[in-house]
Parts: sequence; structure tokens; C-alpha cells
Amino acid sequence: MLTINQDRFLADLRELARIGATAAGGLSRPALTVHDIEARQWYRGKIAGAGLDYALDGAGNQSAILWGDPPGDKRILAGSHLDSVPNGGRYDGALGLLVAFEALRTLKDHDIRPPLTLEALNFTDEEGAIMGLMGSRALAGQLAAADLERTKIAPRELTARLDALGISRESMLAARRDDILAWVELHIEQGARLEDGNIDIGVVDAIVGIRSLKLTLSGEAAHAGTKPMKQRRDALWGAAQFVLRARKHVMDNYSPGVCNIGMIDAKPGAFNIVPAQVDLALEFRHGSSEEMDAMGDDLLGLLEECAREFDLRASFAETPAVHPARMSETVMAAIERAAAALGLSHRRMLSFAGHDTQSLAQVCPAAMFFVPSARGISHNPKEFTSDADCVNGANLMLHTLLELIEVFA
Amino acid sequence: MLTINQDRFLADLRELARIGATAAGGLSRPALTVHDIEARQWYRGKIAGAGLDYALDGAGNQSAILWGDPPGDKRILAGSHLDSVPNGGRYDGALGLLVAFEALRTLKDHDIRPPLTLEALNFTDEEGAIMGLMGSRALAGQLAAADLERTKIAPRELTARLDALGISRESMLAARRDDILAWVELHIEQGARLEDGNIDIGVVDAIVGIRSLKLTLSGEAAHAGTKPMKQRRDALWGAAQFVLRARKHVMDNYSPGVCNIGMIDAKPGAFNIVPAQVDLALEFRHGSSEEMDAMGDDLLGLLEECAREFDLRASFAETPAVHPARMSETVMAAIERAAAALGLSHRRMLSFAGHDTQSLAQVCPAAMFFVPSARGISHNPKEFTSDADCVNGANLMLHTLLELIEVFA
Repeated sequence: MLTINQDRFLADLRELARIGATAAGGLSRPALTVHDIEARQWYRGKIAGAGLDYALDGAGNQSAILWGDPPGDKRILAGSHLDSVPNGGRYDGALGLLVAFEALRTLKDHDIRPPLTLEALNFTDEEGAIMGLMGSRALAGQLAAADLERTKIAPRELTARLDALGISRESMLAARRDDILAWVELHIEQGARLEDGNIDIGVVDAIVGIRSLKLTLSGEAAHAGTKPMKQRRDALWGAAQFVLRARKHVMDNYSPGVCNIGMIDAKPGAFNIVPAQVDLALEFRHGSSEEMDAMGDDLLGLLEECAREFDLRASFAETPAVHPARMSETVMAAIERAAAALGLSHRRMLSFAGHDTQSLAQVCPAAMFFVPSARGISHNPKEFTSDADCVNGANLMLHTLLELIEVFA
Repeated sequence: MLTINQDRFLADLRELARIGATAAGGLSRPALTVHDIEARQWYRGKIAGAGLDYALDGAGNQSAILWGDPPGDKRILAGSHLDSVPNGGRYDGALGLLVAFEALRTLKDHDIRPPLTLEALNFTDEEGAIMGLMGSRALAGQLAAADLERTKIAPRELTARLDALGISRESMLAARRDDILAWVELHIEQGARLEDGNIDIGVVDAIVGIRSLKLTLSGEAAHAGTKPMKQRRDALWGAAQFVLRARKHVMDNYSPGVCNIGMIDAKPGAFNIVPAQVDLALEFRHGSSEEMDAMGDDLLGLLEECAREFDLRASFAETPAVHPARMSETVMAAIERAAAALGLSHRRMLSFAGHDTQSLAQVCPAAMFFVPSARGISHNPKEFTSDADCVNGANLMLHTLLELIEVFA
């Protein structure tokens, strides 16, 4: 059975980890900063060294290309991203790109010219130094001019960084591709379900949608001494009730969906004043749009219920939602056939974090799979995936691509 | 039966309310600012106009004096304060001073020279522009040099303000008096128990103690997507549970004692991060030292219980406590006899706010009584007590002083 070159692949993984390396053992490569640029140059060099073709699209996404025979109009794509969060780990993104690249390199080694062209893609700014999923959104035609005006870096700085790559806002907005037959991505799990279950591979069946709401409960400020407790309209009482009820309701009814209340503030905010207003930051995630809608209705219903119970008023404001992305059954089945052939245990699971695959899922059959993250630690220098799991992931990527070629050729 | 001069008294109340008057219908007279100084000058003028003697002590407390016959060494004191919170109301403090002054003026009108000397006192800085209860603490010998170094205004500004009165830090620290036979104060209730119960007078049997604690619950920060809810150590879950349990426990077991959680903060504080730490500002009040201690033990026990329930750690830090002040049975009985004679309904109740009387209670038999506050509103331009209730209060002050003279002469 065809397998990747394990020593070369692991050596590349270590070499890549030195770019932007931090003293804590992780790395910092925010998109289009000096270390990300260095990693991009490293990748371009590796592509040339492997005898593969190189392409850069209008969004700065880099591709290694293994031409099919015949080359054809349509392609199968795989990959991930080389950028990282500040003070992140070695595996998030980098491993996903390297396994795709190693798969193409392995085919090249064996002089296999598949009947379809393959690409191994490094997407620009997955992690959000600029906006997040920038390259994959551009490629999927999901990027609007307005998005480029709301970046986390100043307009002038964005211009300079794009210039350095030889691209522009205009080229980014024109980067949509219509030649993609299928997409597959490997990523570390960033959770501990695989490790806890002693499972090799997580086949992602959906990337969760995320809704973020700012909730407000309003009562009445009062003297914390003279106002009898029975007569208080304490906004924190309703907020506390909501925190507990939302927790229980989501755990009882929407698992594995999750919710979080990550910020809370009581106003006016003094030891001796009964809180007149409490603001809460609520976020919830689910893999199904229908369940997501129901969760939203339920949670806002609970908010109203908690408000009534303590004679408060409730209101909310919502920021734009990220919709759940269902993965392609065709691509998931290809991953599962390849895993079975390789003797890798696997189960389907949700991805609770966002990935470039959710952009791709808008324009082609797409899916992704996870390899284990030790103790679920991620976005952290302590992020770790064993060499054995990395190699499993690379071989699975190789054979998934072969399965997809069977399906789409 | 001897009564105060109602028209004169109410006219004075209105005249005094013009000093520092705000557009909203209230007034602003923070201690030793321009309008407080103006109110102090007004009072001095009124004392002279009434033919009473005037005295200023080392703490800036102003007295109208009605000499007894014989003058004697020991005196009965009554009064309150002319300073206000910023943007406060017309009655808090001012009414209490005016009823004491009007009582002395009424005796003077009728050429009554009681067998004991009486004073009507305006205390410096009751409300805390500088430190709170400053004048009464000085008079009771409860002021230390260190207190004068932790004032809310800068040392140089304090010096300037004291200079303007002709006093100093040294004179304040030497202002303790040992000539007080008894003390009585009228105040507005700042709550709605009298109004709700249709009662004329609240006889305060204790001024509550106050304990203020900063509580901390610590769990573990986590990704709000990838960390399954069952595995989270969300500090806000424990905090919410504590808010609700503390509320119920105090209402069920310590009423009319009260508790409040006026501030809450979750860290690190982001939509997508499970809170690792929550800080809470807890305050509780009770009229009994024993109950206060038990409340503290119970509340800290609940905190531990809530921490255990969600696998969190609990800690706390306490700021100096204000101890409950029991009122003198002798003075309360004098108020009640006078109320009965005047046909005023009354009941005993706690004062949930702090008052100069708690300083006096350290050095002499002391008590205070409340007149109704419309809808319990206080520290607010909407603060209101009806003319009838003000007049009741003035007549009750007059007759309480006469009762106290009977007791102490």
C-alpha cells in the first residue's frame, strides 16, 4: 500500500516549526507578518524542490500543483494554513498544509499522474490577524468590498502587506474559483474527544455555526441597605438565573451543542447599589441550522422567563452569525473508506471551531478530518500531536485524495 | 400642649432648600464646598436671629445652644447635618437639623429655660465628600490621625477647607466631648416601610452594621466551542449559583437583614472564552452583631458550596466592617412617650443606612427616629417628605427633648 515518506514529512514539520518559533516551544506567525512571509517562502521553496508547480492566486493563497493526465479544467484541492495566532502552537494549520503537500509529493515520487489535477493550498489569514478565513472566503467568492474596510489592521497597513505579496484588494475580490471538484482538510482536533475515546481520526460531519448576542436585563437601582430585598428589581438576580438555566437547558437538550456566557457587567457597579442593569455576552454553537434556530429561540425565551421572574426587562442585540456548514457525504465517505483501508479507527464529530473548510463548503463538496490534540490544548505553545498521529493523518490524506479521484475522475 | 412654630419652621425648610438648589428640584451641598459653606453661614445667622448662642467645635460642628438653668456641665444634644450628596434631595440631614433647631427656638420663644443645656448640632461631612460621619466621629473620639490621611480629597485641599473654617487636623483629633447626657436625631426613612404601613414615626432600634467582601471564584479558561460543557470549570456558573443561593438564604433566614452583590466581572472576558475567574462585590447588613457574624459564616459557607459544585476554588478579601449600633432603650422610650402624647403612630425598625447617631451611640445614650420618605426615594432630587410629616417630626423632637430632660435632669 502506498505510504508517504515519513522521515521527510516529519523533518519538514520540525523545520517549519522553527519559523517564528517562540521560547515557550510554540510559534507566532500572524498572517502577513515577517514570520508568516518566511513560512510562505519556505513553502514555495519546498514546492520547487519537489518538482511540483507553484501558483499564487489573487487572495495570496499558495498552491502546489500536481497536474493530472489529462490536466483537465477541474481540480481536487486539499490544504490548510501556515499562519498562526500570536504565541500559538506548531500544529494548527501547518500540519494540515504539510499532509496535503506530502500527499502530492508522494504521488510525484512514484510518478503517479492521476486523472485529475491536485492542489495543496496554503490559505491566507485563516486565524484572523486581518479578518479570519480571508483567503478561503475570497476563493469561495464570500468576500465583499465592505469586509476589506473592516479589517483588524489599518487600511494603509493592509495595502502595504498585500503589495508585498503582489496582490491587491481588487485581486482579492476577483479570486473566486469555479474549478473545484472537491475539498478536504486535515486539522488537529483542538479538543480531547479523540484522545479520551482513544480514536485515531475524527471525521467532521459539520462545522458549527456561531451566534453571539449581547443580552441586557434591566431592573431598578436601589440603596442596598434601605430597599427591602422583597421589593428589589435586581438585574443580577435575573442574570444569574439565566446563566444557570441556559447552561442546563443546552446541556439537557442541545448536546453536543454548547453555549457560553463569557462577559458580565453590573451597572452602576458599587458595593452598596442594587444593580439596575446587567449585560451578558452569550455565544452558542451547533452543527445544525435548525437546531441552532431552536436554541436561539429557547435561549431568548429563557431570558424573558428570567426577566419576568424578577420583574425585569430583557433586550438583546445580535452580531452577524456564522452559519453551520454541513460536510459533504461524498467526501466524508471517501475519508472513511481510506481510514478503513489504513486500519485507522474513526468516528464522526462536530468541529466546534471555524476552519477554511466552511468557506469551501459553500462552493464544492467539502469535508475535513481531525487527528488527536494532546489534552485538547490548542492556540497555545503546548499544542501537541504525536508523530504517529501526524503520519496517520498524512497517509489518510494521501488515500482520501486517491478515493476522491476515483469518485470524481 | 406646646408645639413648634409651623409656619416659621416650614419657611426655613424652603429657604434652606434654595442653597445649592439644582434644576431637578433637589440640591447639591457636598461638605465644605461653596454651597455647604453657604448653608453653614445661613444656620449661624438663624441661630443669632433666634437669640440662641452659637458654638463651633474643633471638627467644624456647629451648635445652637439653649442654656439650661443652671447651665450645668452636661448637655442633651440633637441634630443632624446640612451637607448633602451631589445631586441629592432637600430633606436628608437638613430636616433633622431644622427640627432640633426649631425645638430650641420654640422653648426660647416661650421663655422656657430647661434644667439642662440643649444643643442643636450640624455635623460636618456626614455624607462622605471627605470621609463620612467626619464631624460626629471626631466628637465621639472615633477619629484617628490615619483616617485623615485617607480622605477622598487631596491632603492640600483638605487643609484649605479646614483652614477656611478656622479648624485644623489637630483640632479635629481633639474634638472629643465628654459632656453629652443623651443624643437624639430625626432623619427621613430613606425607605418605604412607614409609607407602606401608614405609620407616622419609625423608632430606630439599631443602625445596621455593614460588611463588604470581594469574592473570587476561579475555574479554568477554555475555548467556548471545543471544550465540552460537561468538562468545563466555568467560574460564572458558580458565581450565578452563589448570587441566587445568597439571595434566598438571606431572605429566608436573616430578614430584615439584607445582602447585595453590586459588582461582577468575568475574566478573561470574551464571547468565546469560558470564564476562568469571576469577582463579586458582596455587601450585607444587619442590626445585630451576632446575626451579622452568623450571616458572614453562612454566606462564606455558601460560596464554598457553590465552588465545590462546579469544581472551582473560592477566596475572599474583606474591607473594614461597620459594626451594628444598638440604640438606647432610655432614649427610644422617651421618643415613644412623646409620640404617644402627640398621637403619632410609631413602630420600631432598623436603619439600613449609616447616620451620625452611630458615632454618638459609642459615647452616650443615643437613638433616632424616622419620618416617612415618599416612595422611599432618597439621595435623589425626588426625595420628598410631606409638610405634615415634617411638622410631626419637629413636634416629636421638641417633646422628646422635654422627655429626655425629665429623665436626665
